[in-house]
Amino acid sequence: MISVGVIGYGYWGPNLVRNFVECPDTRAAMVADRRADRLAEAQRRFPGIDVTTDSAALIEHPGIDAVVVATPVSTHFDLALAALQAGKHVFVEKPLAHSSALAARLVEEAAARNLVLMVDHTFVYTPAVRKIRELMQASELGDVYYYDSVRINLGLFQHDVNVLWDLAVHDLSVMDYVLDQQPIAVSATGVSHVVGEPENVGYMTMFFEGNLIAHVHANWLAPVKMRRTLIGGSRRMIVFDDLESSEKVKVYDRGISLNPSPEDVQQMLIGYRAGDMWVPHLPVTEALQNAVRHFAECIDQSLTPTTDGAAGLRLVRLLEAASESIASRGATVEIVVS
Amino acid sequence: MISVGVIGYGYWGPNLVRNFVECPDTRAAMVADRRADRLAEAQRRFPGIDVTTDSAALIEHPGIDAVVVATPVSTHFDLALAALQAGKHVFVEKPLAHSSALAARLVEEAAARNLVLMVDHTFVYTPAVRKIRELMQASELGDVYYYDSVRINLGLFQHDVNVLWDLAVHDLSVMDYVLDQQPIAVSATGVSHVVGEPENVGYMTMFFEGNLIAHVHANWLAPVKMRRTLIGGSRRMIVFDDLESSEKVKVYDRGISLNPSPEDVQQMLIGYRAGDMWVPHLPVTEALQNAVRHFAECIDQSLTPTTDGAAGLRLVRLLEAASESIASRGATVEIVVS
Amino acid sequence: MISVGVIGYGYWGPNLVRNFVECPDTRAAMVADRRADRLAEAQRRFPGIDVTTDSAALIEHPGIDAVVVATPVSTHFDLALAALQAGKHVFVEKPLAHSSALAARLVEEAAARNLVLMVDHTFVYTPAVRKIRELMQASELGDVYYYDSVRINLGLFQHDVNVLWDLAVHDLSVMDYVLDQQPIAVSATGVSHVVGEPENVGYMTMFFEGNLIAHVHANWLAPVKMRRTLIGGSRRMIVFDDLESSEKVKVYDRGISLNPSPEDVQQMLIGYRAGDMWVPHLPVTEALQNAVRHFAECIDQSLTPTTDGAAGLRLVRLLEAASESIASRGATVEIVVS
Amino acid sequence: MISVGVIGYGYWGPNLVRNFVECPDTRAAMVADRRADRLAEAQRRFPGIDVTTDSAALIEHPGIDAVVVATPVSTHFDLALAALQAGKHVFVEKPLAHSSALAARLVEEAAARNLVLMVDHTFVYTPAVRKIRELMQASELGDVYYYDSVRINLGLFQHDVNVLWDLAVHDLSVMDYVLDQQPIAVSATGVSHVVGEPENVGYMTMFFEGNLIAHVHANWLAPVKMRRTLIGGSRRMIVFDDLESSEKVKVYDRGISLNPSPEDVQQMLIGYRAGDMWVPHLPVTEALQNAVRHFAECIDQSLTPTTDGAAGLRLVRLLEAASESIASRGATVEIVVS
Repeated sequence: MISVGVIGYGYWGPNLVRNFVECPDTRAAMVADRRADRLAEAQRRFPGIDVTTDSAALIEHPGIDAVVVATPVSTHFDLALAALQAGKHVFVEKPLAHSSALAARLVEEAAARNLVLMVDHTFVYTPAVRKIRELMQASELGDVYYYDSVRINLGLFQHDVNVLWDLAVHDLSVMDYVLDQQPIAVSATGVSHVVGEPENVGYMTMFFEGNLIAHVHANWLAPVKMRRTLIGGSRRMIVFDDLESSEKVKVYDRGISLNPSPEDVQQMLIGYRAGDMWVPHLPVTEALQNAVRHFAECIDQSLTPTTDGAAGLRLVRLLEAASESIASRGATVEIVVS
Repeated sequence: MISVGVIGYGYWGPNLVRNFVECPDTRAAMVADRRADRLAEAQRRFPGIDVTTDSAALIEHPGIDAVVVATPVSTHFDLALAALQAGKHVFVEKPLAHSSALAARLVEEAAARNLVLMVDHTFVYTPAVRKIRELMQASELGDVYYYDSVRINLGLFQHDVNVLWDLAVHDLSVMDYVLDQQPIAVSATGVSHVVGEPENVGYMTMFFEGNLIAHVHANWLAPVKMRRTLIGGSRRMIVFDDLESSEKVKVYDRGISLNPSPEDVQQMLIGYRAGDMWVPHLPVTEALQNAVRHFAECIDQSLTPTTDGAAGLRLVRLLEAASESIASRGATVEIVVS
Repeated sequence: MISVGVIGYGYWGPNLVRNFVECPDTRAAMVADRRADRLAEAQRRFPGIDVTTDSAALIEHPGIDAVVVATPVSTHFDLALAALQAGKHVFVEKPLAHSSALAARLVEEAAARNLVLMVDHTFVYTPAVRKIRELMQASELGDVYYYDSVRINLGLFQHDVNVLWDLAVHDLSVMDYVLDQQPIAVSATGVSHVVGEPENVGYMTMFFEGNLIAHVHANWLAPVKMRRTLIGGSRRMIVFDDLESSEKVKVYDRGISLNPSPEDVQQMLIGYRAGDMWVPHLPVTEALQNAVRHFAECIDQSLTPTTDGAAGLRLVRLLEAASESIASRGATVEIVVS
Repeated sequence: MISVGVIGYGYWGPNLVRNFVECPDTRAAMVADRRADRLAEAQRRFPGIDVTTDSAALIEHPGIDAVVVATPVSTHFDLALAALQAGKHVFVEKPLAHSSALAARLVEEAAARNLVLMVDHTFVYTPAVRKIRELMQASELGDVYYYDSVRINLGLFQHDVNVLWDLAVHDLSVMDYVLDQQPIAVSATGVSHVVGEPENVGYMTMFFEGNLIAHVHANWLAPVKMRRTLIGGSRRMIVFDDLESSEKVKVYDRGISLNPSPEDVQQMLIGYRAGDMWVPHLPVTEALQNAVRHFAECIDQSLTPTTDGAAGLRLVRLLEAASESIASRGATVEIVVS
């Protein structure tokens, strides 16, 4: 039984505690938050849990095996590093850290100490995304042409990161999981509508070797909620709509067929294919529970998590490049993997 | 009664001829197309219409008062110029021409000859877009924050222009009509998935003075059809979904409210407003018929069309900048109005 | 080439004339309507067509091979009978006649004279309904449990028939085509909200041998348009939504599985199956064109139409029973096939 | 603080316990269920709660002020009566009892003892239904013409009641709350597809004085989930779709206008009105929490609940009539209020 301490009992914290309670291999032993009213709420909902306003006390507590960091992004690095240095396994909310240098430092520390460092890229643990990966691993889509994602709503403005770091990170995590290529350059644009605050609307194009292109649109100020991804391939195409209750993943047997024009060998005759559409049945499981069990399993069996520190670092590199590109209104920023 | 000759009887041509037939102030007198089978089809459907494979003959024909150009983009300039020089009013399909220099040349020629030059920005003549403009003119949205448009489907690949010139031009025409500001710079990305063909996926950000931002996503290779625009303002927001049969325009009383934080004057407390949603009733009229009648009225009364050559030129400038930006993977291109 | 005369140029008449024009085996020679303005409209749209206000003249005209009856229901019988007696093939709008006795009389007359009598059950000629029949003929659904249809909108009130005769007749025609059983009894309810007019809301249950049940809900006074049919079977279920543009037919691999309870052999343990969903690709063809070509083919080759007079009669019997049941607020009316 | 005991910890029980925990005026003190594993689950989730397999012990326990009955329908009467006779306030799941005679007996017992008897017609406590009632009380719809409801899914088959008693009861409860008239007669049809089990598909028409009509379609064996109500009036119409996340209630300014025909005074000219559509903003509150607080308030202040025993009895009378009508395949059954 792995004893877990959760730092941060804000929006996501109660879900984390509940899932560590429900996981048969873990127990939620302690919650830390600076706000007394949040701790009172935690105790009301989870009688018997220990609480503290001192995150260092939680990290250092000898009865705690693993630390969950669910605080604002700018504090991830300090807390995660302290926990690793205290010999604790770490489960960090996304994004892993607020710079790639700091993210890389966490990856090194965890490796050096043989500790599990897992980033909560929750969507990777949904049945829908697992099914998409399964289809793509089996080359059902043929050559992958594009990955296009929209994640917008009237959402909570963050003060320390912009909307790409807050929302697009989900899309990047799915993309990282289902594609077998990494972006080599980024062009991004965005704007803030509140003076002094980070961008609340953002657009981000990612370039790959070859003609694959990816794009994410994120917006905290939209009148409607949308969470929709299109993945286009030469043989089939996928629409993943996370707001659909029972038809989240649709697989379309659609595309184009190419033939050299008889009149002009340099011009293609482009035909269209339109076939059946298919909605695979998905099991009903809670993604966060899957993630929590995977974390416990990685600790027990010394495995590398699917969404390990390296995955977290890859995403932070992309977000960092996007911020740099936004500052120059879209100029390409190459992704340098040092 | 204005006598009209239509050059190009491809996909859109039959709609044009039908609408000039149905308009009480015009008659469709002649059709030109290089393809004999298309001319036969025109005569089968519109008995009594004259046909020719020679567009020059149509342009020069003394019985023709106005020429409609519905051919591939790269031929717009030559045909429209010839028609203007022959003293005919001209109705051109969008985009006006394949370069801003050529578009400007057409604008000058029409002005010099006091002829009507109208671009078929059809969406401007839909009841939905007219209602949106009416709402925006009345400042119903407050400060306008963003304009975001998606226009994708499994569509006809064009060989002479990319997907932004073919599809995004519709969105640009609506934007040009409903916003009272012009973009000052563009950043665009895109890719082609067919060797030797223009980009079939494109993304285009437009910057304005202040913090207004606009974005268009166009794609010829999508598994599903979408035509959806979001317009966000400080007071209200609009969702315009052209595929909705009876609820095309939705007006949301949603947004954020800003208050300086009591603790930190430099940080805003951002609150959320969520009020009613409202779908205005729209009359059922055919946009192209509205456009055709407007063209006839402009000829009869020597008026400047809502979508005149100048509007066509503004759009071509944006598309040209987008193409330039795509070539440098997103680098900003300023819009220079000479 | 079959020469066709169309009686009635109201809502549906122009579609009929257009389709007889477009069909390569027929020509639309003449239109009859009592209203001069409708005849003028027909001539404007179809130059060269003959028109008359005298339907008898059309029926008797020696140049006419087949008569199309597209008038109010209460006039179908007289016109169709006169046409048959004049030796003409007949294509009648649905429903065939306003009583089963009259419908039977038409069936007899056509049979006696070896003429084609076809009822315009248009939906039977849609790619969607053909696909559904194909699936059901192949027993893809297993045992058929229920057929449930909703057809509502803010629609044209009819003065001579109620909403079931006007709208539910479409659902009955599909049901008649895809099921291999006939209803044996009807229970129906409905009400009129306009004094002196027929019922504008109607509900109709049909019983079959065994435990198959069918139900249709029709309404002329609904705020939204719906055209949706559910067909439930022991192995699979179908949702047919005619308002969907590209996903009209959905096939669900869902249902229940039955096992005797180990504790109580008289009680079943009912389990649930939820599998994939599948949307077959459908060709894009116009149903009315398919119907018109089928009519021409039946005339040419002396075939019995899929929707012959007998099918029309079966539907009228059901509608007659429904009217009788409505009058007694739902009491069962047996279907007697004399 | 009202101390509550909950009998039945099946599908709905955990929601009830949670809501009595969260309500500031109540505490969930005890749970009774025959199944030891369900009791263990209750204790795991709600540490410190008392459990028992003996419902009589819970009812008789002096520390319990109010008893919640969340067991199969056929046991409601015995448990509720015992609780009332033990002097406890009672909150019963819908439907109140399995016959109107027994339901009436409970109403009498509660009245005689001055105890609160409330039926869990949860939908009455949703913001959506409250808004609908508010609109109807303000005569926003004009004369009410029809109430049409569909509630279908692939749902849990019940063994002791048919699908109308299980699902349609929700629609009847909403109807009872928003209309100011009571049905005077019922015609219903339905069928069972599992030998020996109650009807799993049911249709139910209700007649009122005047020309108001109501209809409910309920089905446990549908491939898709639908929960949609149409309410038609002379001035406006409502569509209530409970599966919509943010647009549950739509108010349509649509209808017909009637004018006597100039030619024939007995025939109406029926015109159509189509105006705006409006979606009122609804607060986000949990209906069951509203119900639980209302129950507590009624106990504290000796008030009659909105969904009291009398409301529960009215619904049972309708369901009883429906069952009787189903047995005779739709024959009208009058509602007799003794």
